[in-house]
Amino acid sequence: MSLSDLSSADLAALHGELTTAYDTLVGKGLKLDLTRGKPAPAQLDLSNELLSLPGEGEFKAADGTDVRNYGGGQGLPEIREIFAELLNVPVAQLVAGDNASLSIMHDTLVYSLLKGTVDSERPWVQDEITFLCPVPGYDRHFALCEQYGIAMETVELGSDGPDLETVKRRVAEDPSVRGIWIVPTYANPNGAVYTEEVTRELVSMPAAAPDFRIFWDNAYAVHHLTDHENPAVDVLGLATEAGNPNRVFVFASTSKITFAGAGVSFFASSPANVTWYLKHLGKRTIGPDKLNHLRHARYLGSADGVRALMRKHRAIIEPKFEQVETILEERLGSYQVATWTRPEGGYFISLDVPDGCATRVVALAKQAGIAMTGAGAAFPYGRDPRDRNIRIAPTFPSPDDVAAAIEGLCTCVLLAAVEQRTSA
Amino acid sequence: MSLSDLSSADLAALHGELTTAYDTLVGKGLKLDLTRGKPAPAQLDLSNELLSLPGEGEFKAADGTDVRNYGGGQGLPEIREIFAELLNVPVAQLVAGDNASLSIMHDTLVYSLLKGTVDSERPWVQDEITFLCPVPGYDRHFALCEQYGIAMETVELGSDGPDLETVKRRVAEDPSVRGIWIVPTYANPNGAVYTEEVTRELVSMPAAAPDFRIFWDNAYAVHHLTDHENPAVDVLGLATEAGNPNRVFVFASTSKITFAGAGVSFFASSPANVTWYLKHLGKRTIGPDKLNHLRHARYLGSADGVRALMRKHRAIIEPKFEQVETILEERLGSYQVATWTRPEGGYFISLDVPDGCATRVVALAKQAGIAMTGAGAAFPYGRDPRDRNIRIAPTFPSPDDVAAAIEGLCTCVLLAAVEQRTSA
Repeated sequence: MSLSDLSSADLAALHGELTTAYDTLVGKGLKLDLTRGKPAPAQLDLSNELLSLPGEGEFKAADGTDVRNYGGGQGLPEIREIFAELLNVPVAQLVAGDNASLSIMHDTLVYSLLKGTVDSERPWVQDEITFLCPVPGYDRHFALCEQYGIAMETVELGSDGPDLETVKRRVAEDPSVRGIWIVPTYANPNGAVYTEEVTRELVSMPAAAPDFRIFWDNAYAVHHLTDHENPAVDVLGLATEAGNPNRVFVFASTSKITFAGAGVSFFASSPANVTWYLKHLGKRTIGPDKLNHLRHARYLGSADGVRALMRKHRAIIEPKFEQVETILEERLGSYQVATWTRPEGGYFISLDVPDGCATRVVALAKQAGIAMTGAGAAFPYGRDPRDRNIRIAPTFPSPDDVAAAIEGLCTCVLLAAVEQRTSA
Repeated sequence: MSLSDLSSADLAALHGELTTAYDTLVGKGLKLDLTRGKPAPAQLDLSNELLSLPGEGEFKAADGTDVRNYGGGQGLPEIREIFAELLNVPVAQLVAGDNASLSIMHDTLVYSLLKGTVDSERPWVQDEITFLCPVPGYDRHFALCEQYGIAMETVELGSDGPDLETVKRRVAEDPSVRGIWIVPTYANPNGAVYTEEVTRELVSMPAAAPDFRIFWDNAYAVHHLTDHENPAVDVLGLATEAGNPNRVFVFASTSKITFAGAGVSFFASSPANVTWYLKHLGKRTIGPDKLNHLRHARYLGSADGVRALMRKHRAIIEPKFEQVETILEERLGSYQVATWTRPEGGYFISLDVPDGCATRVVALAKQAGIAMTGAGAAFPYGRDPRDRNIRIAPTFPSPDDVAAAIEGLCTCVLLAAVEQRTSA
């Protein structure tokens, strides 16, 4: 029953069936969007209390700061305390910012380029710079490198981290290698969870460049989909223990905890790096939106408050993930034409179709009104060398829409796979 | 009665009196702060409605956008409409951002450095770059240039703009001159208001560098202190008319309209520049805090809503400015040792003491518990070549504190002036 076992006559028959099924699909005039990892309205509704917080007369922080006025570059202590616990970093080494951790990543990169890090001999912009990019990975990370002319080298990402041998070799031998992009918990898009063991290797491996940095984007630190709630590894502690305290930049945000567009972002690192970051940030702004920090602190209350909220998110999105898996299994399983991840958390399912088919699948889906993230998006420059990876983002659409989109997608996957075989 | 008319015996006697007065001042153990242009709590209170806005169930923009979610790089139309009118720019060419216009200035500078402007042959970072700095000016502008190794050349700032002859000559002759910092309305700190005539000259003068940019920081566009409410000049229209549509970057914010730390910032420019800015910004963030845009749009309502609010601000701070002027006049006027501005708006009074005395005055004040912005702060690198300029920021302290601080400051000015004369 696997596609490769079918005779050419059977294949031709299947091709005919699938073409009909696809025409029917196109005829439905769907308009579905599985492109981005956006929270659904029902998830946003969970935090609607924020819409009238902090409330009349409420503008003083616990330490008496008037949050309406300028100042307070490191952010409000009460919001930092909550997230220091969740991210497993010291509160003194945690900075709370505005609504986008991507901006903090951008800015640390810009400061490194134009000013150099605390361990740099000169600004990065004066050298050729290379970043290692575990793939599949997050397109916006790669876009930042592309934007600023930073070369990218891919490394294969497994379920608990990247191909360590390659990473260690390249970091040890090449001083142009200054960074690596890592999403340590429920990685975008393959769901990888970096173990403490892998983390130890990454923070302790010898580096040719003294200013080599791990961009540790813990975007999904608390975004569990199962009862197995992977905790945040103490990456800063491990780096210090390994004698490389400045190696790691930690990023996170409440974008997928409260409101995606109106949350709080975080940066954590060694004391020296935090001082460095705040010094440069201080040229850029007189302070973050502390009122939004207070609003969030009042609403979330504590780390446990966040954990409770995340379980409500799970209740909304877990069924969507299950639906995707069920349909993929039902429709594609027996043909053995694709593999996909079963993530324990995060926002994505990573689908691998036959080599050379991803672009065709996404094009077919698009024509049928199902918008998928572009094939190759999870790779630097959007180029998937095997043209097989498709990122599925099931959180935003309604359950019915997710089902309809994945049903349609499966038709496209099968059609593309059969097309490939019949034309070969 | 002018200090220069006093005999040496009279000077000595005055020195004695002032020393006693100063000792008494120090004995009071004051703790007053006139360093920064911060709104007073009473001003922030004006906008306390924001603390519970947009309110329960309110998260849809006029166009149906769910402001809680990602996206919308240019910002919410309803807040842009209000400020397009106030800033006299087309709404389509206006971007609404997060809480700090300084950040937008920083970022436009960074994009120019690392990527080049739409009119640049190459990124600015590859060349020597010079900015013209009308002085006295805003220290944070100069700090941005210093941060990124941009050379600064001072030009004298009068009451309606900078020494145009020098500006025009330098911009015409030197392709390294890529920018000029301008606060066109109630300039920080001297209160200058750029006329339409001066503006025309600036946008139409020939430039050696095709990517010469005017950083037009209209921070005090609606911050009037008198009935003569100077309107925003149509600087983008004039630039287009002059054949230099891309010359001007306009910046503004609600920092001194609503909440200093939790407001909305703005960027306006030519269509090409706005596209350029949004393209680069799109790498840095998936969108601004649109919920704060909605909150502000609901609260402010319209351009007239802002105008009405600004009159309430004026009612709070105008008396403080009057008090400063009255005390300066009473205490210093007859001695003819100082001159000061009488601004029609904005946040500052610029005080010029005898050449060579500003540092001493600020040090004396500090010792008496009166914190003033550092002498020279209004000049690049903090260096006032005549050491005479002191910036007074009277908005934040209570009226009594402003009076006490200025009384004390006058004692310090007189003492420093007499010291200088008696030691000469």
